[in-house]
Amino acid sequence: MSESRNYLLRMKKLDADIIRLDNIEALLEWDQETYMPRSAQNGRAAQLALLAALRQERIISSEWETLFGKIGYDSSAVESEEIRFKNEEFNEMDRAFLREVHRRWLRNKLLPVKLVKAVASEISLAQSAWAEARSANDFQLFAPHLEKVINLKREYALTIAPDAEPYDTLLDEYEPGADVAQISDIFDELGAGIQRLMDKIKGSTDGLNSPMPPFLDRKYSVEKQDSFGRRIQSHMGFDTNRGRLDQSLHPFATSIGLNDIRLTTCYDEKKVLSALFSNIHEAGHGLYEQGMDENLRQTILGDGASFGIHESQSSFWDSIVGKSHAFWSFWYPEFQKLFSENLVDVELEEFYRAINIVKPSLIRVDSDEITYSLHIVIRFQLEQALISGELEVSDLPGAWNQSYRELIGVSSDNDSEGCMQDIHWSGGSFGYFPTYTLGKLYSAQFISPMEKEVGFLADILKRGELDVILQWLRENIHRHGRVYRPTDLCHRLSNKSLGSSDFLSYLDSKYKEIYRF
Amino acid sequence: MSESRNYLLRMKKLDADIIRLDNIEALLEWDQETYMPRSAQNGRAAQLALLAALRQERIISSEWETLFGKIGYDSSAVESEEIRFKNEEFNEMDRAFLREVHRRWLRNKLLPVKLVKAVASEISLAQSAWAEARSANDFQLFAPHLEKVINLKREYALTIAPDAEPYDTLLDEYEPGADVAQISDIFDELGAGIQRLMDKIKGSTDGLNSPMPPFLDRKYSVEKQDSFGRRIQSHMGFDTNRGRLDQSLHPFATSIGLNDIRLTTCYDEKKVLSALFSNIHEAGHGLYEQGMDENLRQTILGDGASFGIHESQSSFWDSIVGKSHAFWSFWYPEFQKLFSENLVDVELEEFYRAINIVKPSLIRVDSDEITYSLHIVIRFQLEQALISGELEVSDLPGAWNQSYRELIGVSSDNDSEGCMQDIHWSGGSFGYFPTYTLGKLYSAQFISPMEKEVGFLADILKRGELDVILQWLRENIHRHGRVYRPTDLCHRLSNKSLGSSDFLSYLDSKYKEIYRF
Repeated sequence: MSESRNYLLRMKKLDADIIRLDNIEALLEWDQETYMPRSAQNGRAAQLALLAALRQERIISSEWETLFGKIGYDSSAVESEEIRFKNEEFNEMDRAFLREVHRRWLRNKLLPVKLVKAVASEISLAQSAWAEARSANDFQLFAPHLEKVINLKREYALTIAPDAEPYDTLLDEYEPGADVAQISDIFDELGAGIQRLMDKIKGSTDGLNSPMPPFLDRKYSVEKQDSFGRRIQSHMGFDTNRGRLDQSLHPFATSIGLNDIRLTTCYDEKKVLSALFSNIHEAGHGLYEQGMDENLRQTILGDGASFGIHESQSSFWDSIVGKSHAFWSFWYPEFQKLFSENLVDVELEEFYRAINIVKPSLIRVDSDEITYSLHIVIRFQLEQALISGELEVSDLPGAWNQSYRELIGVSSDNDSEGCMQDIHWSGGSFGYFPTYTLGKLYSAQFISPMEKEVGFLADILKRGELDVILQWLRENIHRHGRVYRPTDLCHRLSNKSLGSSDFLSYLDSKYKEIYRF
Repeated sequence: MSESRNYLLRMKKLDADIIRLDNIEALLEWDQETYMPRSAQNGRAAQLALLAALRQERIISSEWETLFGKIGYDSSAVESEEIRFKNEEFNEMDRAFLREVHRRWLRNKLLPVKLVKAVASEISLAQSAWAEARSANDFQLFAPHLEKVINLKREYALTIAPDAEPYDTLLDEYEPGADVAQISDIFDELGAGIQRLMDKIKGSTDGLNSPMPPFLDRKYSVEKQDSFGRRIQSHMGFDTNRGRLDQSLHPFATSIGLNDIRLTTCYDEKKVLSALFSNIHEAGHGLYEQGMDENLRQTILGDGASFGIHESQSSFWDSIVGKSHAFWSFWYPEFQKLFSENLVDVELEEFYRAINIVKPSLIRVDSDEITYSLHIVIRFQLEQALISGELEVSDLPGAWNQSYRELIGVSSDNDSEGCMQDIHWSGGSFGYFPTYTLGKLYSAQFISPMEKEVGFLADILKRGELDVILQWLRENIHRHGRVYRPTDLCHRLSNKSLGSSDFLSYLDSKYKEIYRF
């Protein structure tokens, strides 16, 4: 074996331990949100801080720098991260591996273990404070924690890249290569398009703010919601020998290893659609993780290409598939039968319209496909302001409500329905929100390349052939994990950069039919 | 602050990280037995191996040796571990801390990380092979794993103490200070006493092998079993803000931190007594952990004094309390009402006799208070032979069945009911079994000191005052954690060494009444 290959193998061994620590951390976090007893919070924070420190020590170990030198790292090759390692012995996957471990090392080597530990510990405490504050509807309980988290994340960003805008540095963690300027451009165009669409809907017969149909206000048994959710997930191809579904306050998907993908959901008998679509959404994430190539297991490449691409997978399933007429023309009879006490008199058409009603509202996760992105734009703007220090934590509830009034036309005095509705900020995830909308744009941009190969989605869905869709996603996206960067993957699939036009056309043609504008 | 105190503080910091790693490991193991998806097994084994290595590195870090030197460790003081550190600045708890971290260091410093990792990884795989083999009733599936585990544990013992009998070394891990000679003496006396008791029962009107009453064969709803189990646990004082109860194949209790104590149970609608007493048993362990002094949290002293002492706590609750007439005179009306479909015609006396029927049987965890110890004697003998190499793994099923025929008078061709009934060996826990019986002996020896202070147990239990019992256990045992060695604790409480006489008198006076011999 050549020397270079030996160095590469050594790096893979070092990386495998880091990934195992990531997986262990993911289990502790999953447990914290699902089963952990209440009073264990402080102990858990200390455990997570220790793991973060152990991980950090390994990521910045001086051995990496030595190894990068040995295999011919070229620091002057700044244009493309890929060509920094020119060694011709390495194949595409090796080069991707080097790109990613190098990126991780670069982003971490200036971070003191102490700061990493402080972030991990404070986040764990802030998340439990958030849960309490949210259920007590008392922002004051949460505010001091949020402030600490923001200060720590700002310090974190400035340590990684002292000369960059802290928010850009945070953003890059979720969407490698993205920055505020680029996202703002895309979001501006998108916002204008959504505005035009909403005007058309306003002018339609039904208009905006048509009332929710009464059958959605009925009680839907949690047991039946759970059984239907599991059935759909299983039809989508989610493998419960390699994953599971539990309940938590805020639904999420997490990887404790490529054979251990955990989804969570949150049932409410008065909100049947909420768990229904979150079950489909999280399974979309789960399928991405379960679909990764076996060779990527326990390497840095066994992960989503970016948060945006990850979200494109959940969004593809929950919106493009799960909110389509064709999908429900196959599934509605079963759903209607299961909940016959509520739906016996509700026709497919009525149900389809109900799950696609466009209606300005307070809660992001319950919002429709059109206004959803406005919820994201608001968070994108507010979190930039929080990180830059332009907006004080104490002014957040006011600023939040003002933005909601202006952009969406709704607001509430109840901060639990306002700036405390999401877990993200308590978890220090600043820069995460925009990737939700990037995901929707990616997913819409993937429709046409998919249909070129498998035929019209509507035809496939009417026949209930979810496996055909999964097959395409596996082959073209899932199995590659993080081998391709998000921008490259987007080009490989759609021959163009990410934009809002495919998403806007998708919305236009779908809602034109629903609202007859 | 004095220099010595600074060194001690540094040791406490080093120790806290080791304990956190222990806790994290406990979570991974708990998850493996409760919720982990099936195919995650290999990944979990690798995670546990990594944690074991990280822990081992910390335990044997050369800093310990330096610090022991600095605070005046006297290696010639072999008589008592306590006086190896003569520094007068240290209080009782400090000295206990030094004794324990020093013991841990001594037991580990010769162990290569590689061996520790191999043990952890093989154990994780063997446990899942055991579960599969047991449910398939196929010993061959388990045998190669068991062989590997035995070889690794033998190597492990010989590395720690090259000149000692490997089994003694393993035993000492569970019961510090115990050895085969001492336990054999106690068990011989105990065995003879049990034989005398069984002869008396044989000669009584009912005799041995009286049939189980038919009401125990009825179906008991799992939901109700669960609700009653939780109710008893809560009355015992188990705090679900600091712990929880889940289900697993083999019930256990584990500590993920002193505020995060997890119990498991296993329900079977045809075996109501099994889950009932295991719920009480595991809660007994849980109360010990939850009762430790806050100052012991995240230190090596925040643990049971030994496995035997731990077992004395579960055994006190599940046998001395839970199988007493007084306990059920308080609780039976509620239990009878809950399961009225099965128990409406069953009087308290009949129920009390049923839960105390002495009957030679195959399954340890379902056996009565008298024959239980014979199950342990068999395991104690067989595991010595497995570790010494005298008994081959392939001969285990035969040897097992022969022992059962000879000592208990029963046997089965079904290895799932035979040598695969317990999880312990798959987990590498050789030397663990005898502590179950030591626990029963300890618990019987604690009755009289307890009654001296709180009055007759029977009176307390008739009034349902479980808190009075918990109070005494907390004050005299729980809060001290591992501060006292098991032998010292036994002397402090009962003014004598551990023996079998109190246990035998307890059995004699209880069963004399039941069987009227």
